[in-house]
Amino acid sequence: MDNNLNHLLETMYDEMVSIRRYLHQNPELSFQEVNTPAYIAKFHEQLGHEVKTKVGGRGVVATLRGELPGKTVALRADFDALPIQEQNDFSYKSKVDGVMHACGHDGHTATLLVLAKALNKMKDQLCGTIVFIHQHAEEFAPGGAIAMIEDGCLENVDVIFGTHLWATEKTGNILVSDGPIMAAADRFSIKIIGEGGHGGRPHETKDAIVVASQLVMQLQHIVSRKVDPLEQAVVSIGSFVAKNAFNVIADEAVIEGTVRTFNEDIRDFIEMEIERHIKGVSLANSTDYVYEYNRGYPPVVNHKEEASFIANIAESIDDVNQVKKLVPIMGGEDFAYYLQHVKGVFFFTGARDETRASVYPHHHPKFNFDEKGMLIAAKTLGKATLHYLK
Amino acid sequence: MDNNLNHLLETMYDEMVSIRRYLHQNPELSFQEVNTPAYIAKFHEQLGHEVKTKVGGRGVVATLRGELPGKTVALRADFDALPIQEQNDFSYKSKVDGVMHACGHDGHTATLLVLAKALNKMKDQLCGTIVFIHQHAEEFAPGGAIAMIEDGCLENVDVIFGTHLWATEKTGNILVSDGPIMAAADRFSIKIIGEGGHGGRPHETKDAIVVASQLVMQLQHIVSRKVDPLEQAVVSIGSFVAKNAFNVIADEAVIEGTVRTFNEDIRDFIEMEIERHIKGVSLANSTDYVYEYNRGYPPVVNHKEEASFIANIAESIDDVNQVKKLVPIMGGEDFAYYLQHVKGVFFFTGARDETRASVYPHHHPKFNFDEKGMLIAAKTLGKATLHYLK
Amino acid sequence: MDNNLNHLLETMYDEMVSIRRYLHQNPELSFQEVNTPAYIAKFHEQLGHEVKTKVGGRGVVATLRGELPGKTVALRADFDALPIQEQNDFSYKSKVDGVMHACGHDGHTATLLVLAKALNKMKDQLCGTIVFIHQHAEEFAPGGAIAMIEDGCLENVDVIFGTHLWATEKTGNILVSDGPIMAAADRFSIKIIGEGGHGGRPHETKDAIVVASQLVMQLQHIVSRKVDPLEQAVVSIGSFVAKNAFNVIADEAVIEGTVRTFNEDIRDFIEMEIERHIKGVSLANSTDYVYEYNRGYPPVVNHKEEASFIANIAESIDDVNQVKKLVPIMGGEDFAYYLQHVKGVFFFTGARDETRASVYPHHHPKFNFDEKGMLIAAKTLGKATLHYLK
Amino acid sequence: MDNNLNHLLETMYDEMVSIRRYLHQNPELSFQEVNTPAYIAKFHEQLGHEVKTKVGGRGVVATLRGELPGKTVALRADFDALPIQEQNDFSYKSKVDGVMHACGHDGHTATLLVLAKALNKMKDQLCGTIVFIHQHAEEFAPGGAIAMIEDGCLENVDVIFGTHLWATEKTGNILVSDGPIMAAADRFSIKIIGEGGHGGRPHETKDAIVVASQLVMQLQHIVSRKVDPLEQAVVSIGSFVAKNAFNVIADEAVIEGTVRTFNEDIRDFIEMEIERHIKGVSLANSTDYVYEYNRGYPPVVNHKEEASFIANIAESIDDVNQVKKLVPIMGGEDFAYYLQHVKGVFFFTGARDETRASVYPHHHPKFNFDEKGMLIAAKTLGKATLHYLK
Repeated sequence: MDNNLNHLLETMYDEMVSIRRYLHQNPELSFQEVNTPAYIAKFHEQLGHEVKTKVGGRGVVATLRGELPGKTVALRADFDALPIQEQNDFSYKSKVDGVMHACGHDGHTATLLVLAKALNKMKDQLCGTIVFIHQHAEEFAPGGAIAMIEDGCLENVDVIFGTHLWATEKTGNILVSDGPIMAAADRFSIKIIGEGGHGGRPHETKDAIVVASQLVMQLQHIVSRKVDPLEQAVVSIGSFVAKNAFNVIADEAVIEGTVRTFNEDIRDFIEMEIERHIKGVSLANSTDYVYEYNRGYPPVVNHKEEASFIANIAESIDDVNQVKKLVPIMGGEDFAYYLQHVKGVFFFTGARDETRASVYPHHHPKFNFDEKGMLIAAKTLGKATLHYLK
Repeated sequence: MDNNLNHLLETMYDEMVSIRRYLHQNPELSFQEVNTPAYIAKFHEQLGHEVKTKVGGRGVVATLRGELPGKTVALRADFDALPIQEQNDFSYKSKVDGVMHACGHDGHTATLLVLAKALNKMKDQLCGTIVFIHQHAEEFAPGGAIAMIEDGCLENVDVIFGTHLWATEKTGNILVSDGPIMAAADRFSIKIIGEGGHGGRPHETKDAIVVASQLVMQLQHIVSRKVDPLEQAVVSIGSFVAKNAFNVIADEAVIEGTVRTFNEDIRDFIEMEIERHIKGVSLANSTDYVYEYNRGYPPVVNHKEEASFIANIAESIDDVNQVKKLVPIMGGEDFAYYLQHVKGVFFFTGARDETRASVYPHHHPKFNFDEKGMLIAAKTLGKATLHYLK
Repeated sequence: MDNNLNHLLETMYDEMVSIRRYLHQNPELSFQEVNTPAYIAKFHEQLGHEVKTKVGGRGVVATLRGELPGKTVALRADFDALPIQEQNDFSYKSKVDGVMHACGHDGHTATLLVLAKALNKMKDQLCGTIVFIHQHAEEFAPGGAIAMIEDGCLENVDVIFGTHLWATEKTGNILVSDGPIMAAADRFSIKIIGEGGHGGRPHETKDAIVVASQLVMQLQHIVSRKVDPLEQAVVSIGSFVAKNAFNVIADEAVIEGTVRTFNEDIRDFIEMEIERHIKGVSLANSTDYVYEYNRGYPPVVNHKEEASFIANIAESIDDVNQVKKLVPIMGGEDFAYYLQHVKGVFFFTGARDETRASVYPHHHPKFNFDEKGMLIAAKTLGKATLHYLK
Repeated sequence: MDNNLNHLLETMYDEMVSIRRYLHQNPELSFQEVNTPAYIAKFHEQLGHEVKTKVGGRGVVATLRGELPGKTVALRADFDALPIQEQNDFSYKSKVDGVMHACGHDGHTATLLVLAKALNKMKDQLCGTIVFIHQHAEEFAPGGAIAMIEDGCLENVDVIFGTHLWATEKTGNILVSDGPIMAAADRFSIKIIGEGGHGGRPHETKDAIVVASQLVMQLQHIVSRKVDPLEQAVVSIGSFVAKNAFNVIADEAVIEGTVRTFNEDIRDFIEMEIERHIKGVSLANSTDYVYEYNRGYPPVVNHKEEASFIANIAESIDDVNQVKKLVPIMGGEDFAYYLQHVKGVFFFTGARDETRASVYPHHHPKFNFDEKGMLIAAKTLGKATLHYLK
C-alpha cells in the first residue's frame, strides 16, 4: 500500500508541479483569498470529496472517507501569499503586482491536493477518514486556523499532520522534534509621551527621545537578568521613531518590537515586565505612555508520540536521506492552534533549490524552493496517514 | 538734537507702522528675497542716500553722510521671513502661502527705514557717517551677515548697533548685557550603521536601535560630566529615526540634534567629544557610523563698553521704563559675525502685544508684536547714533 | 551478581553512614587535604587494592583488578570540604572551625569506599578492572581533576562514572541527561582607570563610576543581543567597588563577575565581547582598563550512550523511583575534564532530607542530605560497573 | 588713618607670621578645638577687648568699642584644621599626627588677631564698634557659624566682612563678586535593596548592581536635561559599593554623592528629582531603597553694594595689584549663614607661594600659602572697616 502510494505520487509529480506553478502565478493575500479556495474546492469536488468552503472565513475542508472503518487524520496546508514584489524572472513568476508566494504555501497546497488525489485512488483499501484542511491566512495574525477550528474543522479528528517546505534545508532531509518548535511571536508598541520644546531649553521639556532610549536600554535587562538562562526568550525593538527638526526636543517617541518565547509563563511574564519598565521610566521622567501588547500565534508544541511517529515514518522513506532534530525556530505559525486541540505534529521538509547560486530565505523577493521537496512531503504525509489509520 | 529726533520719529510713527504692515503682507524667504531689498533700496534712494544692492548676495547698504566730520556708525536690520503658514487673521496678514514674518524682521526693517529718514532730515547737524545695513537671510545658515561683511559692508565702520524686537518682553523695557548673549547653535547628525535581520535572531545582527539608544544615553554625560558646571552648554537630540517593521532588527538609526554653547573652546570640545562617544559605541558594538557636525552662527558676544553705552542711552529715554540685564538666549543670530569685526552691541527691545489674550513666541504661526516697540527701538538706536557720533 | 551486590551494600550501609559521619566531623579544605587522603588510602590498602597517593597532588587512586579479563571502569568521588562555619547541631557536626562538608563530598567518599569494599568481595566473578578515583580539591579552581589526569589516573580507563548526591531532589530519584549538564563557570574582573578629582569639578576628571556603570549596562547586551536565544549564557556582575568620600570623583572602579556557558564557542565569544565593550567605553571616556578573564571548569558534557546506559541501569534498580531528565545546572564541576578524555557520565542522585522542616541548599551552613541517597548511589554506580564490565 | 593702619600692620607683620606658624604647628580638628580658642581669647583679653568664649560651642567673639559713636562691623576668621597628615617639611610643620592646617585658617586667625591689635591702637579715633568673630568648625557640617549666630554673635552687627587666603591666586590679587560665589554642597546616599542569589541564576534575584548602575546613568540626566543650562549645578557620585564574591548577585548597592548648586530652587528641585529617579528604577526593577539627602552649607551669596564697596577699597590699596571678578567656586563655606542675616561680603585674597616649584591646592598634604597674603588681607579688611565706620 505504501509502495502503491509512492508510485501514484511519482506519476502525479508533474501535475503537482503544474498546480504549484499555477498557484505561484496567481497569489492572493491573507484574508483576501478568493480564487485559490475556489480552485481548491473544485479540485476536491472533482475527486468526489465532501467539500466545505468558507470554513472560518475562507478556508476549505475536504473529506475523503475510506471504505473501511477507522480513525480520522487531518492534513493541513495553508494557501495565502505575501505582500512582496517578486524579483524572480522564471516563467511562472507572480502575475500579481506586489503579491508573491514567497513562503512556499503554493507548494503546500499543490502537495496536499495531489496527495488527496492519490489517496482517493486508494480509498477502497482505506480505513477511516482523511480531512484535508486548506487554510487561508497563515501569514497575518490572527490567522485562519483559529476561525477554522471554531468552525469545526477538527471535529472528530484524532490527529493532525502538517509540514513546511524549508528552502534553506537540503532536499531529502526531514526536520522534526517534540516539544516547542516554533516561537510565540508577539508584537508590542510603546508611545512615550513627553513634552516638546526648544532644543536649547531642555529644562522646560520632558525629552521623549531620552526617555525612550533609556527604556530601550532597560528592556535588554529582561532577557539578561529576568528570564531563566535555560529558557529561550527574545525582546527586540525593530522600530524607534521620533521624527522632528534637529533643534527641538521631541514630545513623543514610538517604539515597536517583538517578543519571542516558547513558554506561556515566560510570555506572560515578559508582557508584564515590559510594562514595569515603562512605568519605571515614566515615573522617573514624569512622562506618560501608551503600551499595547498584541499576542501573535502561540508556540507550536509538537506532541511527543506523534513527533517520534513522524520521525520513524520519515526514516523509512527511500527519498529521505536524513531525519534531523529540528532546532526550534523563532518565527511563529498558527498550526500552533491545531495542536492545542488535537494530537499532532508539524515538521519541516527540506527543499533547497541547488540549481541557484544563492539560497534566498523565506519572505525574500527572490525566494524559491526545490519542487522535489513537495514529492517527499507528500510521501511522508501520505505514509504517516496510512500507517496511522491502520 | 535728541528731542528733535524723538519728535521726528513720533510724527513718522504711522509711516513706520504702514511700512511694517506692507512688509508683513509680503514676506520673502531667506536667500529668496527680491522685492524686499528692492523696496528698501528705493526708499533710501528717494532719501538721496548712497545705496549699494546685492551686497553679499541680496543685502542692501545705504549710507548717510553727515555734513560734519566724524566717526562711522552702522545700524543693522534683517529683512527675511520664515517658512510658516500664518494663523493670524488681522488685516495685514501674510499674502504669501506658507511664508510669514514670524520673528519681527518686518518691524526691524520698518524701524531702520524710518530712522534713516529722520536722521536724514538732521544731516546738516550730523557729524560723521551712518551706514544702514539691511541684511537678508538671518534665519537660515550660513546667513547673510558673513557674505555682506566679506562684501565690505563694515568698511570704515567704527561701531555697530542692532536690536531685536522681543515679543515676550513688556514694551518699554530694554534688555542688554555685555559678554555672550546669544548661543552658538550647531547641528549634528549621526547615522549608526549596523546590520539588520530577523527580530527573533538578534545574535546574527548588529542592532542599530540599541546602539543609537546607548549613544543617546552617553551623550548626556558630556554636559553632566565634561563641561565646566560654571559654563553653559546644551546637547539635545531632536530626532531619532529607525523606522522598520516591528519584527526585524534595525540596520540603521539616524539621530539629529543641536549643540548650544557660548564659548568657542567648549563648542570645539563638544564637537569632538560627541565623536569620541560615537567611536566608543561603534567599537563596542562593531558598528559603523557617519557623523556630520554643521556649525551655525557663533555666539553673539557684546562688547563691554558699547553694552554699557547702550544701557546708559536707554536709561535716558523717556519711553523706556526699565533697562534690564539680558539673560543669555539659547538661540543664535548672525549679528555675531559683525561683532567679530567691529565693536558693537546687540540688544533686545520689549514689544509685547498686550491687546491679545496670549503672547505667542517668535516663530509661532500666531506671532505678533506691539508696534510701539519699533518707536522705542528707533529712538534708542537713533540717540545712540547721535551720541556716539558727537 | 546484581542482587549479590545490592545485598552486600545493604549490609554495609551502617559502615557507609559511619564513614560519612567521620569525614563530616573532620573536613579539610581544597588543596589542604592531609588526613582524608590518608584515611582513604588506608581503607583501600586494607582491602588489598593497589593504591597510589599524591596523585596530581593529593588525590588517591585505588585499583581493583577482577579475576577475569575485561575493560576498565573508573569511578570518581571528590573529598574536599568548604570554608563554611557549620550551623547544624547534630552529633557529627564539623569539629573544625570554619570548615564544613557542605556539599556532600563526605557522602561521595563514603559511598565509593563502601562500594569498593563490596565489589572487592566479588572480585572472583569480576571481569576487568575498576579504578577508584578519589579526587581532592573539587571546590576550588583549578581543581584536582586536571592534575590527577595529567598524573595518569585515566590510563587504560574505558569509561568513567560519577555522581553527585543532590540534597534538593527527592531520595529515590536519579537525574541524568546527555549533552551539557553543568556550566562552564568563569570569572572576570575589570578595573576602570579614570582620573579622580573634586566632586564639584567633574570636567577636570574622568569619572570611573560613571564609566563602570555604563559598562554594567552594556554588558547586559551580550546576553540580550549577541547570544543565540536558543543557547544558554549568563553574564553576572557580583561586585562593584569604588569606595571614596562622597564629595570626590572616583579615579578607579573595580567590577567582578562570572560568565556561565554550556558551549565553548559562546564562552570564547563572551570573553572577547566583554573586552570589546570595555574598549568601547574606554575609548568613549578616555579612560584605561585592566581586564582579567579566568576560566573555571569547562562545561560538563555527558556522552550520549553512557548517559542512556546509566538511565537504563537506574530504571532497573528497585530503590529508584524515578529517572528524570537532568535540567542543566549553572554551577561548575571539574568532572568535566574526565569527560574530555574518556567516555562517561555524571549524574545526580536524589538525597533530600525529609526529616527537617527546611531543605538547605548545597554550600549552606545548615546543609545536610539524606544518607539513604548514598546507598542508592552505590547501587547505581555498582550495577553500572558490573554491567559495563560484562 | 588708613596710612596709620597700614603702617601699624606692616610693623606687626612678623608677629602675624609667628602667630600663624604657632597655630600651624598646633592644629585642632573641627568641633575638637580647645587650645586655639583659649589662645585667641587670651590675645584679645590682653588687648582689653570684651571677650565671649564658647560662643555657639567653641567660638570666640571679641569686641572693640571705638571711642566715637558709629555702626558695628563684624570681621570673621575661622580657626579649625583638617584630618590630613602634613607632608611638608618646613620648620613649623604640624606637630599633631594626622591633623593639619591645610586650608589656611591659621592664616585667617593670625590676620584677624593682628588686625585687632592694630585697630585697638587706633580706638580713640574709631567710630562705632568692631566685632571679631573667631569661628570654630568651618570644615565640618553643620559648621560653627550657625550655632554662633544663634548664640548672638551678629547682634547689632550692621555688616560682616570675611576673606579666604587663596593659595592658587597670585599674591596681590583680590577676587570679589556680588551674587552667588560659593556653592551649596550637599551630600546624598542611596541604598538599593535588591535580592541576592546565585550568579548563574539571575532570574531568581533582583540585581542591585544593575539597578544602581542604571540609576547612575539616569542621574546624569538631571544636569543634562532638567537644569536650566544658564544655571549651575553638579550631581556627582563619589562612591559606589557592592562588595561581594564575583559569582553571586548583589543584594545591595550603596552609592554616595554630592550636589552643588548656587540657587535654592534648583537645590530643592535636584533633591526631589534624584528621588524621582530612584523611585523609577525601583518600580522598574521591583527593588527597594533608602535615600538620604543631607544639606551642607547654603550658597555664599555676596550682597551687591558691599561687594562693590570691597572692590573699591581693594582697588585703593597699594599692595593690591589687581581686583578681579571672582568666578564662583564649587566648594561650600558656612560664611553663607552670616550673609543670610546681615549684609556683607566674602572675598578671596591671593596668597600664592611662588617660592615652591608646585602650587598645591587647598586640602593637599603639601598645602602652603604666601604669608604676605595675610598682610594684604589685613589691610583690606582694616581699611574696609574704617571706611565703613566713617
